[in-house]
Amino acid sequence: MAFTVTHIVRFQHCDPAEIVFYPRYYEMLNATIEEWFETRLSCSFAEIHGPMGRGVPTVAHETRFLKPSRLGERLDFTLTPKRLGGSSVTLNVEATCGSEPRVSFTATLVWFAKADGRPRPWPEGLRAGIETEMEGEAL
Amino acid sequence: MAFTVTHIVRFQHCDPAEIVFYPRYYEMLNATIEEWFETRLSCSFAEIHGPMGRGVPTVAHETRFLKPSRLGERLDFTLTPKRLGGSSVTLNVEATCGSEPRVSFTATLVWFAKADGRPRPWPEGLRAGIETEMEGEAL
Amino acid sequence: MAFTVTHIVRFQHCDPAEIVFYPRYYEMLNATIEEWFETRLSCSFAEIHGPMGRGVPTVAHETRFLKPSRLGERLDFTLTPKRLGGSSVTLNVEATCGSEPRVSFTATLVWFAKADGRPRPWPEGLRAGIETEMEGEAL
Amino acid sequence: MAFTVTHIVRFQHCDPAEIVFYPRYYEMLNATIEEWFETRLSCSFAEIHGPMGRGVPTVAHETRFLKPSRLGERLDFTLTPKRLGGSSVTLNVEATCGSEPRVSFTATLVWFAKADGRPRPWPEGLRAGIETEMEGEAL
Repeated sequence: MAFTVTHIVRFQHCDPAEIVFYPRYYEMLNATIEEWFETRLSCSFAEIHGPMGRGVPTVAHETRFLKPSRLGERLDFTLTPKRLGGSSVTLNVEATCGSEPRVSFTATLVWFAKADGRPRPWPEGLRAGIETEMEGEAL
Repeated sequence: MAFTVTHIVRFQHCDPAEIVFYPRYYEMLNATIEEWFETRLSCSFAEIHGPMGRGVPTVAHETRFLKPSRLGERLDFTLTPKRLGGSSVTLNVEATCGSEPRVSFTATLVWFAKADGRPRPWPEGLRAGIETEMEGEAL
Repeated sequence: MAFTVTHIVRFQHCDPAEIVFYPRYYEMLNATIEEWFETRLSCSFAEIHGPMGRGVPTVAHETRFLKPSRLGERLDFTLTPKRLGGSSVTLNVEATCGSEPRVSFTATLVWFAKADGRPRPWPEGLRAGIETEMEGEAL
Repeated sequence: MAFTVTHIVRFQHCDPAEIVFYPRYYEMLNATIEEWFETRLSCSFAEIHGPMGRGVPTVAHETRFLKPSRLGERLDFTLTPKRLGGSSVTLNVEATCGSEPRVSFTATLVWFAKADGRPRPWPEGLRAGIETEMEGEAL
C-alpha cells in the first residue's frame, strides 16, 4: 500500500543552475516521512517530539539523483518501508515527475529518546503499524 | 593533502530535537565542496555557473550519520577526492567534532553543461587539479 | 477577493525553541506570493524567470510576529494587494492559525529584468490582473 | 563599538535569479545576532536555549533590500543596538559589500521563557552588556 505525497518545486527549492538544490530534496523527503507517520502510523511528529519525548533521526542515506527537477514541476514522493529492526526502519522513497524517475532514496531512521540520545525499541503500536504497511507492500 | 572547512552549528541548523537537521548537514557539505573548488582547484562556483555555463550537480550520496551534533559545536569537514571519472568525481567528506566522528559522506558529482543538462569531460585544468589532490592523498 | 494558501508547520520549519524559525516564515510568504502569481495572475515563476527573463525581487518588508507557531499547526496565509506602482506592488499577507493572528507581513516587490537587474514597467496583462485583484478588495 | 560578521554568499543562498534569496538573508541576520550575543554579551544561544530555558524570538522586522547580492560576494553585517526595553531590544543591522549598501534591517527581539512563551525582564548581566554596547555607539 504505497504512500505518496506530491511536492511542487517552488522558487525556494531552486539554485542558480535553475534546478532543485539537493538539500531541498531532503526537506521534501523529510516532509514525506513526517506525513507518513501522521497519516499511516497515526503518530505525528508533534506528538513524538513533544509529549512522547522521542525523535526519529536518520542514521543512513543512499541516494541517487537521476535527473534534475525544475521550477514549477510536480514531484510525487512514494514511500515504501523495506526493513524493520528493533529500533530502526529502512524506507525506500522514489521521487518521480509523471513517469520519469528523478531521485531514489533509501533512508534508515532510528527511534530514540531525546533525554539521552539513545535508541529505544519501537512502541508496540508503531511496530504493528509499520508491519501492516510492509505486508501491504509484500502482497 | 586533506582539505578542511570548519562549520559552527548555528541556530538555523537545529531542529526541535535540538540537533542538526540533516538537510542542513548537506548545506555544510555543499559549502565545503564549494570552498574546495575555489581554494584547491582555483575555480569558483560563481565562475562555473556564470561565465563557464557549467554546473556540478550531485548524482549520488552515501551518508552515515554517526552521532548527533548540537548547537554551538564546531564541526570540521575534511574532504578527500577518491575517484576521478571522465566527467565525474567521487569525494569522501568526514565531519568530526574534535576527535569524534559525526557524519561520513560519499558524494559523486558530475561536470555538466547548463545549456542541455548533459555531462561534459572535465576541462584539463580541473582534471589536473583533482589529480594533484588525489596524489597528495596517496602519498 | 482574498487569496489564501495553507501551510502546515513541518519539522523543517521549527527551531530548538520548538517554534517556527522566522526565515522559514519568509519561505512560506514567498510560496504564497508565487501561488498568487500563478493562480490569480496566470503567470508562473517558471515563466517569469525562464522565457520572460524577468524576476520579482522584494525591496522592502515590514513584519510583525504576533504569536509563535508550533509543529503540526495549519497556517492560512491570506494575500491582498495594497498598492500598485509603475514597476512595483505592495502586498499585505496575514498568517493566521484558526482565528488567531500569527504574522502580519507587508512586502513590496519590483518587476525587474534579470539581464541588467533594473526595474521594468509591469506588462499590461499583469497590471490589469493586479488591478482586478485590488478592485475585488475595495468592494 | 560596531560589531561586524562577514558572510560569503554561497550557492545555497542563491535562487534561479542568481541573487541571494531573501529568506537566506534572514539566516545571515540571525547568525549575526547569535554571534553578537556570544561575543559581546558572553551569552551563547546554546546556553540561552539549553540551561537558561529562554529564547529571543523576533517580534518585528523592517527591512529594505537595496541592491541584490551575487554568488561569491563577501557581505559585512554590522550590528548596532538602538533601543533597550524591559524585555526587548531593537537592533540595526546593515549589510554591505565593500562600500555598497545591500540590505538594511531593523529587528526587534524579546527575551522570553520557553516554558510559557511569555516575555521576561532581561537578566542584569545581559542588560548591562547591551547598555555598554549602546554607550559605545553613542560616543
